[in-house]
Amino acid sequence: MAKQFVKDVTAMDEDFAQWYTDVVTKADLIDYSSVRGSMIIRPYGYALWDNIKNELDTKLKETGHENVYMPLFIPESLLQKEKDHVKGFAPEVAWVTHGGDEKLQERLVVRPTSETLFCEHYANIIHSYRDLPKLYNQWANVVRWEKTTRPFLRTLEFLWQEGHTAHATQEEAQEETLRMLNVYAQICEEYLAIPVLKGQKTEKEKFAGAESTYTIETLMHDGKALQSGTSHNFGDGFARAFDIKYLDKEGKQQFVHQTSWGFTTRIIGALIMVHGDDRGLVVPPRIAPTQVMIVPIAQHKEGVLDFAYDLKERLGKVARVNIDASDKKPGWKFNEYEMKGIPVRLEVGPKDIENNQVVLARRDSGEKIIVPLNELEVKLPAMLEEIQNDLYNKALNHREENTFTVQTFDAFKAQLEERQGFIKAMWCGDQACEDKIKEETGATSRCMPFEQEHISETCICCSKPAEKMVVWAKAY
Amino acid sequence: MAKQFVKDVTAMDEDFAQWYTDVVTKADLIDYSSVRGSMIIRPYGYALWDNIKNELDTKLKETGHENVYMPLFIPESLLQKEKDHVKGFAPEVAWVTHGGDEKLQERLVVRPTSETLFCEHYANIIHSYRDLPKLYNQWANVVRWEKTTRPFLRTLEFLWQEGHTAHATQEEAQEETLRMLNVYAQICEEYLAIPVLKGQKTEKEKFAGAESTYTIETLMHDGKALQSGTSHNFGDGFARAFDIKYLDKEGKQQFVHQTSWGFTTRIIGALIMVHGDDRGLVVPPRIAPTQVMIVPIAQHKEGVLDFAYDLKERLGKVARVNIDASDKKPGWKFNEYEMKGIPVRLEVGPKDIENNQVVLARRDSGEKIIVPLNELEVKLPAMLEEIQNDLYNKALNHREENTFTVQTFDAFKAQLEERQGFIKAMWCGDQACEDKIKEETGATSRCMPFEQEHISETCICCSKPAEKMVVWAKAY
Repeated sequence: MAKQFVKDVTAMDEDFAQWYTDVVTKADLIDYSSVRGSMIIRPYGYALWDNIKNELDTKLKETGHENVYMPLFIPESLLQKEKDHVKGFAPEVAWVTHGGDEKLQERLVVRPTSETLFCEHYANIIHSYRDLPKLYNQWANVVRWEKTTRPFLRTLEFLWQEGHTAHATQEEAQEETLRMLNVYAQICEEYLAIPVLKGQKTEKEKFAGAESTYTIETLMHDGKALQSGTSHNFGDGFARAFDIKYLDKEGKQQFVHQTSWGFTTRIIGALIMVHGDDRGLVVPPRIAPTQVMIVPIAQHKEGVLDFAYDLKERLGKVARVNIDASDKKPGWKFNEYEMKGIPVRLEVGPKDIENNQVVLARRDSGEKIIVPLNELEVKLPAMLEEIQNDLYNKALNHREENTFTVQTFDAFKAQLEERQGFIKAMWCGDQACEDKIKEETGATSRCMPFEQEHISETCICCSKPAEKMVVWAKAY
Repeated sequence: MAKQFVKDVTAMDEDFAQWYTDVVTKADLIDYSSVRGSMIIRPYGYALWDNIKNELDTKLKETGHENVYMPLFIPESLLQKEKDHVKGFAPEVAWVTHGGDEKLQERLVVRPTSETLFCEHYANIIHSYRDLPKLYNQWANVVRWEKTTRPFLRTLEFLWQEGHTAHATQEEAQEETLRMLNVYAQICEEYLAIPVLKGQKTEKEKFAGAESTYTIETLMHDGKALQSGTSHNFGDGFARAFDIKYLDKEGKQQFVHQTSWGFTTRIIGALIMVHGDDRGLVVPPRIAPTQVMIVPIAQHKEGVLDFAYDLKERLGKVARVNIDASDKKPGWKFNEYEMKGIPVRLEVGPKDIENNQVVLARRDSGEKIIVPLNELEVKLPAMLEEIQNDLYNKALNHREENTFTVQTFDAFKAQLEERQGFIKAMWCGDQACEDKIKEETGATSRCMPFEQEHISETCICCSKPAEKMVVWAKAY
């Protein structure tokens, strides 16, 4: 019976895309609906997002940000105020043309992002240097009219937070841009156990309307990259388009300098593809809605269930503990919670009770240990902490093993054919080379890492002198 | 200077509608944008909603509900599956007709509510009695194409939670419907200090597609009613339309019985119009983001600011305390926090420090008391508790004073002309009478209260025998 359950998930190495689809559905993260390209986020998937949201929201508040809520719709004329921005987004928006029975005089866009609304609001409420900085954030849904979609990774609608800030100077804006990138990096590394590569996007890959875009890039199990969070410095471009000015201390009118930054439900895709395995999801303890699932063995025998419930209450003080006392067979339960990636399974049956012990089974390594009852309050949290660290280190090792350095375009192509991953190579800075590399290999520039290395003297594409090392990869 | 600030708010008795608009903007709750009928919820307004949301979410989880997230868009054909439902909502929805440059083959509705999506999902995941009950909730934005809008009370888009549950039997569904109505009533009475009237909606006023709708109705300062939360029992109507069946314990196919219930940002409108006064907002302590605002007096004098910050830290253990140490004059600060309805202002200056005391000023009553420093940890929480209770009692008194009993249609009309409020009157049960009363007086049936009284023998409108007492009012 156990095997039958496992068989439902395609092996990762056989068909990674199918494995992913199997996991998101079998682990009860999502369901499909008749709405093309959208997903239903089921209770388990939503609990993951809720935990990420709470963790990030706390950090946003600690760094002085306030939550607001902007309208869902943007009038077409407002979207058009900043030229690069509308060019970037217009091809992929949903248009509302009718309200009730009436045709609208002006079409409305369902927000793909809210820069224009924040700018309009800022123009309204910022007057003096005393009003700065404005550090606003919103938790919201946004829509982008994607042709090809996949749960969490690319959907018509997704959930995110978008931060929008206004500052007196360009230096402050730049500081904020990098501060928030680091907050995202922290969430990924310390909370989700996902190592990140930090860097700057090229001109080609930067956000529509930004002066510069910074990114955290993560590497999935299959060697593809996932852009996992971005932070943009707008300079005063939007401020000029929307006329957001303040009176400085000397009584002079100045334009504000702005940033925006976003983190989305997409990160759940990264969580799945970084930590998952052939038995399903693997959830790092810090984000796990349930860290320990108690599975009673021979629960019909006298005293077993009472004992298990007492344990749940006792251990609830040191971890997030749940119990499955349903009449399903233990083997079924084991499979279900392995599929869902619950970090630790606690087994307890009549013999264990007799011996004053329980069995702890780790989801990530499969390791099982017997723990005396009186040591549980110490051993269990220690095990959770160890799992968290092990998952991070495993992901870091995987990334290191799949980061390659090449000095020529031929080596670049050969590497991609042999094994995908992050490819470090020098670049001249010319977009023509970036385009050519993408066209010929399918790999895109992920970022110019903050930690630069001098690999060779020349661009791998055109052989002109090169100063920038770019990390390239095929990406989700 | 102080007076100038206060002058910005129109007196309630002079023009209540204008007073309301003044308060929502001057207390920094909202801002307008170029999106017709939508509002920007500013940090202070959003903090109020966030507190309500957290309080309600905790109660939803305590009663066994799980959060999910459904798509924003609903295909036209899906909306049409339940006939009463589509008839009720189609006239007031926003239509998405284009995605990017393409015209869609099928129009999409921006969700006005999500029954149809939940039903489709339930049909997909409910198979056996073991899958029941399903107790789902979602926090989301919804859109209704309203012609006339007012911040919080009626906006094109609003934020809410919508609960959707499926049960094995009609009894269980009915139990759930009333349980959730009571949860809403609790939030209003115990948390927001707003007394509610509980009852059932008439056929005319019930939700599109529901078998029965229950409501909590609240009375505003101006004697108008506000529907503040509704809970619907759908019976098996939606289940039949969407084919949501389960195999019962005897192996027979049965339709599920469903409920839905919603609570929205509208409640912030109630909060304003129940507790507010001519100086602005009055926020009950339990929901107040800041319960106590410390305003240092003569803060340039040595030791005052240090002392005030120490107080903030110390009192932070017993209340949500903030401090305004800006260089604005105390009078300005007093006005600002009165406008924002902060429950208690704590004043502390050099003389207070010398005398080991502070001044506590209540926002609601204006009362000021001197409190010795060593009694603050006791007196401050007690004062907050007292304010909470006083606000509730004041609102309850106001409702009682403005609840009228009439035995004839003439008395009904006379009462409405003299003073608005809840009007109790007997009704025959015929919709024609309900229509006529609305047409001739503008008052609508708010509900048939659970606590019925036998006021007279006959319907006030048609004089036929009447068994139901209805509470009528003009409503927002």
